[in-house]
Formats: sequence, C-alpha cells, structure tokens
Amino acid sequence: MTKLAVFQSEWAPKIEQQLTQDLGEASSDSAFSDMMAYAVLNGGKRLRPMLTLAVVTSFGQKITPSILKVATAVEWVHAYSLVHDDLPAMDNDLLRRGKPSVHALYGEAEAILVGDALLTGAFHVVSSANSCSIKNDRISAEELLLLTQMLSVQAGGSGMVVGQVKDMQNHSQKLKIDAEWLLNDVYTPKTAALLGFSATAGSRLAHLDSEHDISDDEIMRGRLATHLALLTFGIDFGIAFQIQDDLDDFNQDDIENITSLPHLIGIQAARAKRDEYLTNARKILTDLAAHNLNFDRTLLDDFLNLIGDEI
Amino acid sequence: MTKLAVFQSEWAPKIEQQLTQDLGEASSDSAFSDMMAYAVLNGGKRLRPMLTLAVVTSFGQKITPSILKVATAVEWVHAYSLVHDDLPAMDNDLLRRGKPSVHALYGEAEAILVGDALLTGAFHVVSSANSCSIKNDRISAEELLLLTQMLSVQAGGSGMVVGQVKDMQNHSQKLKIDAEWLLNDVYTPKTAALLGFSATAGSRLAHLDSEHDISDDEIMRGRLATHLALLTFGIDFGIAFQIQDDLDDFNQDDIENITSLPHLIGIQAARAKRDEYLTNARKILTDLAAHNLNFDRTLLDDFLNLIGDEI
Repeated sequence: MTKLAVFQSEWAPKIEQQLTQDLGEASSDSAFSDMMAYAVLNGGKRLRPMLTLAVVTSFGQKITPSILKVATAVEWVHAYSLVHDDLPAMDNDLLRRGKPSVHALYGEAEAILVGDALLTGAFHVVSSANSCSIKNDRISAEELLLLTQMLSVQAGGSGMVVGQVKDMQNHSQKLKIDAEWLLNDVYTPKTAALLGFSATAGSRLAHLDSEHDISDDEIMRGRLATHLALLTFGIDFGIAFQIQDDLDDFNQDDIENITSLPHLIGIQAARAKRDEYLTNARKILTDLAAHNLNFDRTLLDDFLNLIGDEI
Repeated sequence: MTKLAVFQSEWAPKIEQQLTQDLGEASSDSAFSDMMAYAVLNGGKRLRPMLTLAVVTSFGQKITPSILKVATAVEWVHAYSLVHDDLPAMDNDLLRRGKPSVHALYGEAEAILVGDALLTGAFHVVSSANSCSIKNDRISAEELLLLTQMLSVQAGGSGMVVGQVKDMQNHSQKLKIDAEWLLNDVYTPKTAALLGFSATAGSRLAHLDSEHDISDDEIMRGRLATHLALLTFGIDFGIAFQIQDDLDDFNQDDIENITSLPHLIGIQAARAKRDEYLTNARKILTDLAAHNLNFDRTLLDDFLNLIGDEI
C-alpha cells in the first residue's frame, strides 16, 4: 500500500463529511440542496482537495478543520464545471459516472442553476472557512482573501472557463490545431489550472505562521518561490493527468469529432509528452526537498505515480 | 433635478470606467473578454452599484477608488444572471435591451461560459479591490472577506439562484401559487437579495474606521443594527421594484405562461402591496436619520421615488 493510499483512506471520508455538511446548508430550499448534493456527492476521487491536503502534510504541517474546509472549495468548482460541461449545449452527456447527469435527471434549467449555485458556494466555503475553526486554528483574513483571489483566477476567464471555451472551439469548429496549442490553450487552463490552485493552496496553508508579518525579505522570497514551485507542480501534474485521460479514452473517441493529443501526434509521442511533464514535476519535488528541511516528497511522488501506462 | 440624478451623472461614468477596466483584464483570451464585456457594457442603469455608493454618501463618507471597485462586483453578478436567464433552457430571450442576447449573438455554450466567467470574476473584483487603493484607502482583509461571504450568500443557493429556481417552477409547472409565496420565495431572493447586498455593503463601506477594533459593545451593536437596517431597506426596495416591473409589463404578459403579482391579486392590490414595501423602506430611513447624526436620507428617498405610478 502506498503512503498516498493510506493517506486517502484517512482523509477521503473527512473530505466527504465536510462536503456533505456544507452542501446541507447550501440552499434555503431543500429540494434544490438535494440537486446540488447529487452533483457533488457522486463518488468522485476528490483528487483536488486531496492534493491540497497532501501538500500540507508534505511540509510536516497538521491538517486543521479550517484547512480541511478551504481544501474542499475547489471540489465545488470542479463539480459545477462537470454539471455545465455535461449540458446539451456543451458535451451533451446524459451519464456521469454511470448515473444520469444533473440535466438528464433534473432538467436543463435546473442544471444551469445547480452549477451556478455550486460556483457561488465555493466562494462561500473559502470565505467562511474559519466557521469551523477550533482554538488557534483560525486562518488569517489576509490569507483567505488571497486564496479567494487565487481561486477566482484559476477557475475563471483566464483559467478553467477559458480552457472550456477553447475546448468547445476545438470540438465544433474543426480548427487546424497543433499540439502546442492544445497543451497550452486547452489542457493547461481547463484541467491543470485547478490542480495548480490545489497544490499552491496547500503550500500556502502549510505556511500559515504569520506569513504576513515576516519582515525578513529572504525568507519571504523563499516562501513565494515555494508557493510558485507548487503551482507549477500542480500544473505539470494536471497536464500529464489530462494526457493520460486522453490515452485511456483513445479507443473510445469518435475521431470525427474529437481531437486529443494522441490523435494529433500519435500514442507513443503523447506518452513521451506526458512523461516529460511528469519528469518536470519530479524535478520540482527534488528541488523542494533540497531547500526545505521539513519537506517529505513521498506523498506527492505517489500522486505522480498514479499516472502511467501500467495502471 | 433630484439629488440622485446629480449623483448619477457624477458616478455612472465612473462605474462604467471601473467595469470597463476590470473587464479588459477578465480573460486571457481577447475574443472571450469581448464577449464578457458585451454582456456587461450594455447601457444598464447600474442600479446596484449606484445603491451601494449612494448609501456610502448618505452616511457622509467619501467614495474612494477601492470602495468604487467593491461596489461594481454586484454588477458582474447581475450581468451573469441575465446572460443565464436569457438562455433557451430558461427564458429563451433573443433580445436584451433591444440588442441580441449573449447566446443569440455568440451561441449557447459561449453564453453559459460567459456567465460562469462573470460570476467567478465578481469574486475576483471584491477580493482584489485594494489593487486600486491609494494612500490610506485600503479596505481591511477582514472587511473584504466578509463582503465576499455576504455576496456569496445573497447571490447563491439561498439567494438569487434559488429565486430563479422558484421562478422557473412558477413558469413551467403551473403551480397553485399565492401572493405570499411569490413575494417571499421568488421576488425576495431573485430580485431583492442582490439589492439587499448592495445597500448593506454600502453601510459596511461607510463604516470602515477600524470596525474590527471597536471594543465598545454598544457602538458595535449600533453598527450591526445599521447594517441590518440597510439590508432590509435594500430588500424592501427590491421587492417594490419587482412589483413595479410586473405592473409595467402587465399588458405585455402572456397570461397563459406568466403568473406575476398583478395577475394573481389584480393591479390595484399589487400597487397597494408595492406601496406597503415602499412605506416600510421609508420608515427605515426615518429610524436611521433619528439615530445617526451624519445620515442624510435624501439620496435614498430619491431611490424609492424611482418607483411609482407616475413614472
């Protein structure tokens, strides 16, 4: 059993509990709350909050209740994006994880609104994270505000949403595309931006010791370099993850309609590209270990090992 | 010319400028930025940010650059809600203010994504409001975090979104509804919640003098009572505004499909109901003037006077 598998068996139920609790208060209308919960509590792997918590742990820091709550916000964003992606005007998917998608079950208008409420709710989760704090577990308002800002960037018009815009163009307009465009303009914002947020949020949450009071410029620069390294780690991991997803789906794709990296450059070259991003991500962990005495890379190596041909 | 008309002629261009500037940075993709800007820069009255700024001014406080920026966030939320409401699965409107709606012009998928990006962007506007601060104009992180939280509540699954859910049910399911349900379950969340946010945000922004450091319980209770009074004022104004909108639209409605308050209880009774909310709102201003030496009610009275039979 990998260290990550042990970690997941401990934290997956706690993430699920946090999501369930917050979703129970997500709407004043219980029928609508149920729709929102259906969209989120669907057996997802919780990769994004898990990555945040793994980064916190990698730096030897404790996962407090308010850190757990912040970590789950990105899952609301991920869930809303799936609900909207499944809509008839987008990918028109009737199934999600073998069950009816939200619009298939509840109707199209309801699915649009469920997505809207989940996205709005994500920002409530971050901004109210201290509501479940205990003792000295409060996260500073400065930090939560910065995390709010980062989430809005990685999820919005320069992040996840624009990745979906490009992906739709890719599907519908039969653009003449190349691999570089697909990696930089689709995969990076659509899939990797949120994972980048998850990782760098973990780095920030692992360094809550009055960061805003640090007067030593050198320490401060080191901190920022660490946060940036984790952002890049999350993005590299995210792109490799997306390429793997494409490789897994390759045989099911309708070649007429979908242009993914393996379709563009072939399976072997796509695998090589994926391994390039994994190598970059591993290099980041090596650098982090060299500069941070408290950093244990095992969990994050296990994340990278989730991706590959043998799985 | 009313005091509000003078105020609007000064601040409408500044609101427009702030929106234009932030929308210019709303996406890394310029074509998508343009779609987002099209959805917002459409000649709207900017009632919601104007209300926030009017409240700040009513308390004798200066409107600083960062206060202006915070005030405009709600307009992003309002604009996204119109884009999504116009979608084929919702109200299926091809026109908005006499021009093609976003989905009519750019396509349905794009309209969903424009709305998503505007909603996400609203939280970026609030959380980055200090980016345009000058000198001592910074708003505390505590305050901005609280405003983020309030916006997510009034816009989300217990606010605006659930109002739209109920309104869709009202349209499609031909429920047996009564006036109380319509006022409380549709008008209040769908229209009044955001206006409630605008007004109470103005109250908070008018009292930025280290509120979080106030140790005097009595002053603190007075502050909270003031913020709550403005929330109620905004909600009363919003409901009256929605009833007026229904009265104005009464003759254009297809009685088969739409059930609005005048359809339910008749024009005279709807006018009486509207005036009830206006009277309540005026009472709040009377109370505020009695308890706050610096409070000048003229601008907010002008807001209430926008609504009525003579206009």
